[in-house]
Amino acid sequence: MQILINEMKRWMVEAGENLKKALAKESLEVDTKSSRTDLVTNLDKQTQDFLIERIVSFDSTANILAEENGKHALSSMEGRVYVIDPIDGTMNFVLEGENFCIMVGIYEDGEPVLGFIYNVIKEEFLWGGPSIGVYLNEDRVNQPTIPSLSAGLVGINCKMYRENVGNSQEIGRRSMGVRMSGCAGVELVHLALGRRVAYISNLSPWDYAAGGAILQTFGMKLSNFNGEPLKFDGQEQFLAASAPIYDEILAIALNTEK
Amino acid sequence: MQILINEMKRWMVEAGENLKKALAKESLEVDTKSSRTDLVTNLDKQTQDFLIERIVSFDSTANILAEENGKHALSSMEGRVYVIDPIDGTMNFVLEGENFCIMVGIYEDGEPVLGFIYNVIKEEFLWGGPSIGVYLNEDRVNQPTIPSLSAGLVGINCKMYRENVGNSQEIGRRSMGVRMSGCAGVELVHLALGRRVAYISNLSPWDYAAGGAILQTFGMKLSNFNGEPLKFDGQEQFLAASAPIYDEILAIALNTEK
Repeated sequence: MQILINEMKRWMVEAGENLKKALAKESLEVDTKSSRTDLVTNLDKQTQDFLIERIVSFDSTANILAEENGKHALSSMEGRVYVIDPIDGTMNFVLEGENFCIMVGIYEDGEPVLGFIYNVIKEEFLWGGPSIGVYLNEDRVNQPTIPSLSAGLVGINCKMYRENVGNSQEIGRRSMGVRMSGCAGVELVHLALGRRVAYISNLSPWDYAAGGAILQTFGMKLSNFNGEPLKFDGQEQFLAASAPIYDEILAIALNTEK
Repeated sequence: MQILINEMKRWMVEAGENLKKALAKESLEVDTKSSRTDLVTNLDKQTQDFLIERIVSFDSTANILAEENGKHALSSMEGRVYVIDPIDGTMNFVLEGENFCIMVGIYEDGEPVLGFIYNVIKEEFLWGGPSIGVYLNEDRVNQPTIPSLSAGLVGINCKMYRENVGNSQEIGRRSMGVRMSGCAGVELVHLALGRRVAYISNLSPWDYAAGGAILQTFGMKLSNFNGEPLKFDGQEQFLAASAPIYDEILAIALNTEK
């Protein structure tokens, strides 16, 4: 596994260097997908192709589930599955030039093995998995101590917050504040490092696969916003938090508070 | 003025180094002010005292308007006024350890002279004023090209967005997305660099003084959310944007769209 970890980090950092160069040249080709705010660039596609080529060369048994180029569905999570988001936070990539991530999650028969989240501009690489622990760049990271919803910040998806899905406005009100970064990877890293107490959004498998492997290493909980297991199939409303806060938030969302 | 600029940057970077050291030691003393989410730390107060001491030693005519220690009101903006936010984004300072700024705005009889925003962890220093232009660290920054509300991101205060103050939900809907960073300095730097098209929040003079001097250098507009001049006296609902987008947003906010 150590060779795979080292290789994966090397590929992702190399992919990140290419993204930095592309940003410096200001020659992005931007298209829309499902809506005017659902962006994809030539770099999303190129980065995904680059990662898939490296992964498949290394592991000929690899199954791939990835955001672009028609790789967005798999018939099952059986075997070893690499879940790839070549640019998580494409809108930020285009409009901010920062706060975007490259992410890969590795699952074995649906169980998390490894997660890799690389915040390209910050050069902050969070990676790990249940059998090895969690690391930020080269340093071991300990499970954060998160006292309560009322003591921390919550990342919430803009549209879900506006429409008060799952009483998300009340969840925000009970916290220390709501943050919207526009990037699942940024939020899940914050959560793993104790800078957030929860993250609520509308996510696809490539948005949560890497972060999910890392958060589960810390015993944190993630599910759809009804408390049911994530399906790794299409977009779902998503909740992640450390165990006691997860239960507190789900009770607010489902109106089952005692 | 060059000596003042160099000294101010030096003081603010030194203050930032002290904040980094304090974060590394994890010994913050955190108190609340007006509400449970309005935080102040021993470092806010120490940083402000440090900056005031340096400023007054350099300029004995300095009037001071600053967030902490009872310096939060002035009878007028006559003469030379230094408006200081020792830690903008105290909540982020405490809970994220990043996304906070040290800010100083200098005004002469109410007119902007210089603004300084130092994002401590990013080591990103935006500074400038009408007579000298705008600089990011040592590089001259050009006025950003911002095409329309529909093409960019808008920073909006969480509570104002939740309560739909000034139709802010509709403003967000027409944009490419809403961001909430919890730090006025972060948002105003984004706006000055073209990573945002507007910023809407509830701000005090020390939150907007530095950024205001910089944005006005670029001909951008800022006012209260009714389009009236900012008072530099207490908290106000605030709007900043480049000129055509400012007008578009104000028309949505005031229901005066044609």
